[in-house]
Amino acid sequence: MTTDDIGPYSNYRLTVRLALLNKPGIFAKVAGLLAEEGANLGAVDIVSANAERMIRDITFDVQNEAHGDHVLERLEALPEVNVLSASDRIFLLHLGGKIRVQSKVPVNTRNVLSMIYTPGVGRVCQAIAKDPSKAYAFTIKSNSVAVVTDGSAVLGLGNLGPAAALPVMEGKVMLFKELAGIDAWPICVATQDPDEIIRIVRGIAPGFGGINLEDISAPRCFEIERALKTSLDIPVMHDDQHGTAVVLLAALTNALKVVGKRMEDVRIVVNGLGAAGTACCRILLAAGAAHLIGCDKEGIVLMGDAEELRACRTDLHACIRRDQPRGTLHDALKGADVFIGLSVGNVLNREDLERMNQDRIVFAMANPDPEIEPKVGDEASRIFATGRSDFPNQINNALSFPGIFRGALDVQASEINEAMKLAAAEAIAGCVPAEALSEDYIIPSVFDRDVVPRVAKAVAAAARATGVARRRIRIDDDLR
Amino acid sequence: MTTDDIGPYSNYRLTVRLALLNKPGIFAKVAGLLAEEGANLGAVDIVSANAERMIRDITFDVQNEAHGDHVLERLEALPEVNVLSASDRIFLLHLGGKIRVQSKVPVNTRNVLSMIYTPGVGRVCQAIAKDPSKAYAFTIKSNSVAVVTDGSAVLGLGNLGPAAALPVMEGKVMLFKELAGIDAWPICVATQDPDEIIRIVRGIAPGFGGINLEDISAPRCFEIERALKTSLDIPVMHDDQHGTAVVLLAALTNALKVVGKRMEDVRIVVNGLGAAGTACCRILLAAGAAHLIGCDKEGIVLMGDAEELRACRTDLHACIRRDQPRGTLHDALKGADVFIGLSVGNVLNREDLERMNQDRIVFAMANPDPEIEPKVGDEASRIFATGRSDFPNQINNALSFPGIFRGALDVQASEINEAMKLAAAEAIAGCVPAEALSEDYIIPSVFDRDVVPRVAKAVAAAARATGVARRRIRIDDDLR
Repeated sequence: MTTDDIGPYSNYRLTVRLALLNKPGIFAKVAGLLAEEGANLGAVDIVSANAERMIRDITFDVQNEAHGDHVLERLEALPEVNVLSASDRIFLLHLGGKIRVQSKVPVNTRNVLSMIYTPGVGRVCQAIAKDPSKAYAFTIKSNSVAVVTDGSAVLGLGNLGPAAALPVMEGKVMLFKELAGIDAWPICVATQDPDEIIRIVRGIAPGFGGINLEDISAPRCFEIERALKTSLDIPVMHDDQHGTAVVLLAALTNALKVVGKRMEDVRIVVNGLGAAGTACCRILLAAGAAHLIGCDKEGIVLMGDAEELRACRTDLHACIRRDQPRGTLHDALKGADVFIGLSVGNVLNREDLERMNQDRIVFAMANPDPEIEPKVGDEASRIFATGRSDFPNQINNALSFPGIFRGALDVQASEINEAMKLAAAEAIAGCVPAEALSEDYIIPSVFDRDVVPRVAKAVAAAARATGVARRRIRIDDDLR
Repeated sequence: MTTDDIGPYSNYRLTVRLALLNKPGIFAKVAGLLAEEGANLGAVDIVSANAERMIRDITFDVQNEAHGDHVLERLEALPEVNVLSASDRIFLLHLGGKIRVQSKVPVNTRNVLSMIYTPGVGRVCQAIAKDPSKAYAFTIKSNSVAVVTDGSAVLGLGNLGPAAALPVMEGKVMLFKELAGIDAWPICVATQDPDEIIRIVRGIAPGFGGINLEDISAPRCFEIERALKTSLDIPVMHDDQHGTAVVLLAALTNALKVVGKRMEDVRIVVNGLGAAGTACCRILLAAGAAHLIGCDKEGIVLMGDAEELRACRTDLHACIRRDQPRGTLHDALKGADVFIGLSVGNVLNREDLERMNQDRIVFAMANPDPEIEPKVGDEASRIFATGRSDFPNQINNALSFPGIFRGALDVQASEINEAMKLAAAEAIAGCVPAEALSEDYIIPSVFDRDVVPRVAKAVAAAARATGVARRRIRIDDDLR
């Protein structure tokens, strides 16, 4: 085992605190052991020392968790050495959580205290009581989003529950702030009953400008989102559904430009009709797709003529026939132009792709292993994309949800509707300049700082055009 | 009207945007008008200008809202001037809210993204799913408090509702952060039904380390706090009750030292048995008070021998006899040593205080006007305190709730119990060195940086001593 086996983005870096007998040669034993194991030694620090013992912190890379455990066992087995603690980098980064709250002004004098708190704040409260729309002017309702989960579908790991979901929600909060300047807060709910979840979210809505539902399993997520959209006057979006769908549409829009085909002509197969797959079908239909087949574990369960399917799209669930599959995934691929997988790993091989048409577009989004081995998928299609960061064309929700909420909040939209999502997809696609479009570049990078402002602007405009924007013209507009 | 009428802490400073005809002499008219009105002109800025118009922002102090409106009317009446907008300083400070969220690490490379979000974060989620206590190590549950209100009792302004309460909750969040480093978040609930509120707070509890109930009216607040304390394993405290009571006990402890009387001997009258008054009675009984009379609108409604009352203190409500008052407040004051008012303004006069014993202690906490005119109260008692910042001995909850929650979170206490509150009161009192104690200095300043660490330490110790602390000994303890 050599350090060649450890990639540049090692996610298995350990920081270990050792108590060593304070004698010459002991640390050399530790260093030698690590070298034998191919564990690349990094930083070494002295924490404290006395006549008997020296406490050192050492950092080294290992290949994976099992390798790490093995190295720790060997260290502990050295007679002059005790392993006091071991943390790996990811866990160290998570110590005490990843987010914090900050005051916008320091509260260090009575004068400030009397303005941000009693009695001065009372005047602001009374102004809002008199005119509730002023909550947007004078509170964080103008910029805050609740990131709500019940932990029933955490990443690809399943039902881990609300407390275990919190690190993901904190990460989401970080992305909202870093990419779109939005102040989000994680809300991990203690129930998985849809009615209870709906009541809780309705209950906490007054202080928030928007609701982002996250990691809530299908099919409960459809009902929960629909009920909240109906009863709340602030934007509600389940990102696993629509954030994914928007980015997929953007990627497909650009891919079709590269291969020279049209949305209304191509035959599209979507595999996996959970939260993301369902939303993906809906947005493709809204975008003009006319030949769509949906597959799931049972086989072909969504099929029909364009009119039928487009009419179905507000409640696609009702058009899905799981009890009467009309063939297999492999049947569906014959003569297809586009494959979109939001299912599980390793369900396709090269032969399957070769049943599709020339210049085929394959988006294999299953996480962590795509529907087809990436090397094979890339070779056997004209345009290939996954959700992975170690391949080109990463289809990543972080391209959509920040800008969508930014635009919605900017105009105090009462909802995130279809027009806004379509506008977001178009804006994301437009971030790749036409002359730069290619088989390996159909989607912008998550770190492209143009994405959020462009998406926000397009979403805001679509909100205004569809009459769901509520923000009054600002006084500065007088001057433009 | 002169600037002498405007105190140093003017809370009526307006910033006004004017559009002026772009001709010589127009601004001089504005300045002259302000001078006539005794409105002290501060900053003047040019926003923009063209051939016809100049837009300027000007800032000036006025005496009160009516004066401000009058000045604005006069400005608008000038033919060459339009008032485009007017904001006063408090409102400007509140624009867009007073708090924000921050990432602890910048998310600017794929490497960081893969550790704080997918896929690296998944390992942390799985660790918590396996061992739920790890949520304290790896998430903000270790440091977060939900500040929960239904807006039914906002400051002294009554039932303004949840949205209008948000500025107060944001202020609370700022104090949690600035004074105790706690990451709090405001939760304004859309219902005033106690059962619904209880369900909502239980529903959101998994992601929080503690719950601070705020501005929820009596008597619903008692039931809500009790139910949540019973069903949650994280600390729950209604600050309007116990934060106030703790500071009152601290102040009284020191006041008794100054006058040389003992808690068990003094005759105490508490006027106003709402949230704060009830909690105050309870903590005084826990601290050894033996002669306590409680009054409310009806008159004397709480009275009994020491054993009786002390036994009652867990559900004081049950011992309060509103239907059978045993006299008036004025009767109660005869021979009393201590008056604590948590009621309404101007219910007492000098003669009332003179019915009390020598070296009387008077805490007149009603907001905004104390039970007795401060000048009179101060003259007619040995020790006088209010909740106001413009008098000595300000009894301010900000002295207690930050340190109480800090201590509770530090040891992952499962609750905030009576021992912890008594310890907090003692710690606050102890912040005034014995040699510095005097009639005008019985309570530390809110900005005294020693308060929170001392209170937190005492509360943590009390939590450990009463078996409600859950945090394991940290590894660093090996080395001390």
